[in-house]
Amino acid sequence: MTATTDTPRRLQIEAVASELFRERGYAATSVRDIAQALNLQGGSLYAHMASKEDVLWSIVIRAADRFNNEVGPIAADSARTPADRLRDMIRAHVGVVTATQKDAAVFLHEWRFLSADRRAEMSARRDAYEALFRSVISQGIDAGEFRAVDPRLTSMAILSALNGIPTWYSPTGDLTPTQIADQHADLFLHALQTHGG
Amino acid sequence: MTATTDTPRRLQIEAVASELFRERGYAATSVRDIAQALNLQGGSLYAHMASKEDVLWSIVIRAADRFNNEVGPIAADSARTPADRLRDMIRAHVGVVTATQKDAAVFLHEWRFLSADRRAEMSARRDAYEALFRSVISQGIDAGEFRAVDPRLTSMAILSALNGIPTWYSPTGDLTPTQIADQHADLFLHALQTHGG
Repeated sequence: MTATTDTPRRLQIEAVASELFRERGYAATSVRDIAQALNLQGGSLYAHMASKEDVLWSIVIRAADRFNNEVGPIAADSARTPADRLRDMIRAHVGVVTATQKDAAVFLHEWRFLSADRRAEMSARRDAYEALFRSVISQGIDAGEFRAVDPRLTSMAILSALNGIPTWYSPTGDLTPTQIADQHADLFLHALQTHGG
Repeated sequence: MTATTDTPRRLQIEAVASELFRERGYAATSVRDIAQALNLQGGSLYAHMASKEDVLWSIVIRAADRFNNEVGPIAADSARTPADRLRDMIRAHVGVVTATQKDAAVFLHEWRFLSADRRAEMSARRDAYEALFRSVISQGIDAGEFRAVDPRLTSMAILSALNGIPTWYSPTGDLTPTQIADQHADLFLHALQTHGG
């Protein structure tokens, strides 16, 4: 039987695997560990997944889709100024990171354990996603809204800062997701805008 | 025989281990892999190291020391303004990250595989290091040089951005380490300073 996606059992397997991959790392987590956490026999898991990598791939693809679905439409809305779009892209990215903290951490740190083909596919998707930021920053420079920064370096700096959030964010901490989103957006808009703060 | 540090052989082992930990992850790298990369028998490695974790610990401690030795004195130089200090702290941090890219990547991503005691020690050291940034940002706010940002969130944003550099920096790429350092310093100083850019 081949793996099927989106069944309740499969989603449960992915949630447990995401938790374990995040805690121990993908390489140090066995299919047996995943089965044990679900009170199942290792063998019976294979009715729901083709391999450990297959589960990682689902987690990674789902996470990549989430970022893209939230941020893509904002980036493409050419009726709005680049500054307004960048502000909302940062907010939306932080929204995904804080709402799906575990999956985001697995996506960000464990994707390099995918097989070469899948890693190449994900690398291309990550680059296309980063290009959304690069492009809006370039448009802002052309429009005179942003200073003449390097769009690639700046987009990497913004995304690295936002992707660091899962390492320190706590749902029970002092700052709400909205505050974290607004403060990051404010920080980078100040960094870029030509008029004074 | 217990492990000794700083012998040429030991440093060679650490360099090879750092490369493998970075490529495959600590958990997926065996002592045998390290020995093979050095054309040695697995057993003979134990004359130079107590365990795989022992080697990770050396790499991590060395990296933490490098950051601290470069950035600590700048943070403490109260004769200089907070803005001047923060600019040079960012430059110094980027200098370490680009000069020791592999070790920095292992330090940043693999330290969580240390045993609980060592992880706690490293966690405290990382927090003390982050506090250098937090403190200079707070001093800048108090002095009216910086806007009233959240010093903790801002220091995490800065360090996450800088620590993302090993994931995209290439020594043969378009940007020199100095350009990368200056552009990050410029970006975050603009983000913080009260007067317009």
